[in-house]
This record gives sequence, C-alpha cells and structure tokens, in this order.
Amino acid sequence: MSTRMVEVRAKVMKQNDLLARALRERFHNEGTFVVGLVSSPGSGKTAFLEKLLAGLATTYRVAALVGDLATKNDADRLQRATPNVWQITTGTICHLDAQMIETALREWQLDAPDFLFIENVGNLVCPSSYDLGEELRMVLLSATEGEDKPLKYPTIFNSSDVAVITKMDMTQAAEFDVAVARRNIESVRPGMRTFEVSSKTGLGMEAVFEFLKAQIAREARMQPAR
Amino acid sequence: MSTRMVEVRAKVMKQNDLLARALRERFHNEGTFVVGLVSSPGSGKTAFLEKLLAGLATTYRVAALVGDLATKNDADRLQRATPNVWQITTGTICHLDAQMIETALREWQLDAPDFLFIENVGNLVCPSSYDLGEELRMVLLSATEGEDKPLKYPTIFNSSDVAVITKMDMTQAAEFDVAVARRNIESVRPGMRTFEVSSKTGLGMEAVFEFLKAQIAREARMQPAR
Repeated sequence: MSTRMVEVRAKVMKQNDLLARALRERFHNEGTFVVGLVSSPGSGKTAFLEKLLAGLATTYRVAALVGDLATKNDADRLQRATPNVWQITTGTICHLDAQMIETALREWQLDAPDFLFIENVGNLVCPSSYDLGEELRMVLLSATEGEDKPLKYPTIFNSSDVAVITKMDMTQAAEFDVAVARRNIESVRPGMRTFEVSSKTGLGMEAVFEFLKAQIAREARMQPAR
Repeated sequence: MSTRMVEVRAKVMKQNDLLARALRERFHNEGTFVVGLVSSPGSGKTAFLEKLLAGLATTYRVAALVGDLATKNDADRLQRATPNVWQITTGTICHLDAQMIETALREWQLDAPDFLFIENVGNLVCPSSYDLGEELRMVLLSATEGEDKPLKYPTIFNSSDVAVITKMDMTQAAEFDVAVARRNIESVRPGMRTFEVSSKTGLGMEAVFEFLKAQIAREARMQPAR
C-alpha cells in the first residue's frame, strides 16, 4: 500500500472507531445486547443465526442485521425466525462498517430489541479491522474448512471474543480433528471460549443459548435504572 | 468510504493495473502460462493445487506462488509436489497485488517455468479487484460452502475465467445440489467453463489437466519465435 493510502486509511479507521463507540453507548443505553458474527463465506453463519433467533425469540425480542455484497437471500431466510430482519448490501465492499450500521438503524426504525445480531460479509480478513459497536463478537469456523484457519487468519480470532466451530455433524466426512482446531484457536487467542455446534442437528446449541442469556442477565445487572 | 479514500484507491488500482500489464507481457515473453487461484478460506485451493502441480510436473516445469496473511504451511505442503514454491505473507492485507508478485519474483530468482500458479489469500471479495498479470483465473467453490456463493459474490466470478467446484466427494454429506450451483454460476457469468473435482478421490482432475495442457499448447502456437 502507498504511504498516502495508509494515511487516508488510518483516518477512516479512526472515524469508524469514534462512530462505533457512539453506537455501543447507544445500544447500552437502550438495553440492547449486540452480537457480531464473522466468518468466511459458507461457514454457516446464516444457518446458525436462524437457530439462535428461533431459540431466543420465545423469551426475548430479537433482531438481525445482515451484510452481503449482493442478494437479500439471507434476510429472507432469517425472516422465518423473526420479522425483525434488515439486509445491508455492500456492493463491492468487503466488510460492514459503523456508518453502515448507523444508516441501517436510522432507516429501519427498529424498536430497541433485547438482542441484535449483526451478520458481517463472509470474509476472514477485512471485518477484523472494523468495530461495529457490538458487545460481543463471535467468529465461526466450520469443520469443513480445516483446522488451520486460526493460524492463517489470526487477526480475526484476536478481534473476536468467542469462537464457534460449526458443521460438527460433518467432522467425519471432512476428516476434521476438533482437538487440533481447539489447540490452534488456543495458540492464537489463549483462553478463548469455544463452542462446538451443528445447526443441522442442534448439537451444542443449548450451550450457546445459555451463554448468551447469561451475558444479557449480567448486562442488565450493570445497567443504570431507566 | 470517504471521497478521499475512493480517490486514493482509484490511483492505487491504476498503478496495480499498469504493473499487472507489465507482468503479463513478461510472462508471455518468457513463455510462462500463469494461473491465478481464488476462493474463500478453506475451499481446498492448496489441496487442488498440490494435485495440479504433481500431475503436471511429470511433463512440465511447474512453480507456485502462495499468499497467506500468516504461516508458511501452504508452501510446506506444496513442496511435496515441487521444490519451486514461494510463500508471500501479507500480514493484514486481504489480497495479493501486482507489486507483491513482482517483488516475490525478484527475490525468488525463478527460472521461467511452463506453468506458474498463484494462490491468492482466501477471500471471495478483495482479490477480484487486483489483476496479478495472470493469463487465466480460476475461482474455486467447495461443495460444503453452499450453492449460493456465485449469487452472493458475483464480482469474483465475473473477474474469473473458469470455475472449479471442489470437494465433490462431500456433496451428499453437505446436501449440495450441483445443478443449482451450476445454474447460479451460469446466471452470474453465462457460458463460464466449470469443472467438478475432488482432490481427495481424484475425480474430475484429468479434465482440468487436459484443459490446462490445451491452454499452454495454444499459447505456444501464438508465441513469437524466441
């Protein structure tokens, strides 16, 4: 990258961070717990999110904001679980940024839900640099992608709070060694909380629900009276 | 993106295009047929490339340039097929660019091979914008990623010449409908040549070898006498 490009990029990143901070404060004040989801294309973000929304919607008000370069397929799929879905199409841009979130929220006029999930563009590189004001970021890694992804894409694992190994029903077919994957996650981000799930069979989903419910309960205890 | 960022980016892209054009001319003059490989992380680029190198090395001089954010794992793997392997680690940059290729070639001091494969960083977005001077670009889509990827990442399919559906041994386990995937590729880039392979079982690899051999033969006929 040219020096000029680096300088301009630094400025854009700083603007993003300021905006993300404002979003985080707003979400906090409104009592919305925001979870970001990042992964490579085809890791099962949407299938996982569909299960999360359906599972949580019985007790909580849930909503989802989904980013893709093109198509509204994901929003259509997620609407089976909740009507509160908004799609951002980014064109050729490889990630969501805080400005896109703010714009979407303005157009959407969403009544503050308990949980808002933000599904990023499928990309293991670019989203790592853009804070979206989320409280918790989950990075997904599917059993069919290979155990080495944390080593090859360390920044996205470092910028996430929780790892989720998806498509656990396919470990045998893919010859995926979950112990090696866990060791690789651990070496990149020691102590990272890791879940193993299958959106298809439901395996491991209960643990994720419990974890998210505990997060929101903790958040509520820390919340000023409204 | 800010107006300023867009302007600087346009300038960087133009520089890249000029450099890529010079590389293409150089490869042409040296009689090297250059193939770029792009896909999401974990689609099986390296496994596919390992098979390609091993299959072609019996008749041709082959070499591979591989890009990753971090680790030299891919280069180590590919060296089982040929000693002519060079790894570029990009740090946090989400794609290879023409400058990286030129720098690598200068340091590598590679004696012009018949085939040079350039394996890009695993990313279905950013690499689409950067011409690397390759003669042919292959986009890989694995059966475990889902049939919708061409619709969601149209630009990378549009900027590629050939599509390769990988992990065809896993279609059943992944409930992957190859006819739907082919239809989606066709709708994004009508007439795109598409191969279906399994690097694990070897299925479909012969057709890819024959295709590449035909490309290089055609190139040789168009080549000025040296």
